[in-house]
Amino acid sequence: MPRLTMLSIVALGSTVAIGACAPAPAAPPAPARNAPADIAAVSAIRNNVVAAYNSGDAAPLAKLYTADAISMDNHLPTTTGRDATIAAAQGMLGQFTVKMSLTADETVTFGDWGYDRGRFTFGMTPKAGGPANTDEGRYLVLLRRESDGWRLTHVITNSTLPMPMPPPAATGKGK
Amino acid sequence: MPRLTMLSIVALGSTVAIGACAPAPAAPPAPARNAPADIAAVSAIRNNVVAAYNSGDAAPLAKLYTADAISMDNHLPTTTGRDATIAAAQGMLGQFTVKMSLTADETVTFGDWGYDRGRFTFGMTPKAGGPANTDEGRYLVLLRRESDGWRLTHVITNSTLPMPMPPPAATGKGK
Repeated sequence: MPRLTMLSIVALGSTVAIGACAPAPAAPPAPARNAPADIAAVSAIRNNVVAAYNSGDAAPLAKLYTADAISMDNHLPTTTGRDATIAAAQGMLGQFTVKMSLTADETVTFGDWGYDRGRFTFGMTPKAGGPANTDEGRYLVLLRRESDGWRLTHVITNSTLPMPMPPPAATGKGK
Repeated sequence: MPRLTMLSIVALGSTVAIGACAPAPAAPPAPARNAPADIAAVSAIRNNVVAAYNSGDAAPLAKLYTADAISMDNHLPTTTGRDATIAAAQGMLGQFTVKMSLTADETVTFGDWGYDRGRFTFGMTPKAGGPANTDEGRYLVLLRRESDGWRLTHVITNSTLPMPMPPPAATGKGK
């Protein structure tokens, strides 16, 4: 084994130091984009949302939203916070049987943030009887990775169906 | 001036090396979040969207969207690409005088991405005459910083007004 000189120790030290520095480029690297595990996690959330609504039980939704999540369903008030969102869903599922589908068109994650965009179909049939109401349209959701997994932070939906025209103003006194 | 020994050169080398490494933590740093210049740029885009619609000229919108921007206005088809979005806006502005307002509730940027969420009011009065149609609701937009500035990549809106009930099915043969 060759004997290390003081010079070679200095050189060795430099090499180690350069080696330690090398992985860090001058500018901060872009956050990991579309890592397969992240995309899979977002897809699982999407599937679990559908499963919860179609099963008629909103309870499993609780683990899919951040505590501060904001839901903006079309023609309905904004719900702020996971609890309000789950309560609104449970109220609706108490009155209606739901048949929902979601089809993703674009799923992107970058670091601890992501979004998912796509289309939905939604049918709700009153449990008390009466005709089903159906809608179809688009969704855009934002997601954040928390310490124990990805969750929805923002949900907004709208319709691709034409806006129904309001009924004409009543002109008579009949019911 | 004290004479540097070989040992002190080694120590000096280590110090320099540690100094060079120190700014780079083990994990990639989070991208700059809510930098004032970025928030200001997003606010300017919001204001310029309002100004364009209220002026009746869609042309200034062109510089506010990415080439691949996706617009999802409620009860209207999705427009894909900046050109389609501008064309749809110009078509609408040819037929209606618009009065729009946007109020931001949340503006967040992280690195080269961001989102803006808030409320809108929208009135459209037919230039050919007739009653104005008004709506109010929410918007959620995503933005991306391109080499020459921030632009909208995704726009979705929906309504906080109750869904108008469709007119009852006609029961007679009268018009």
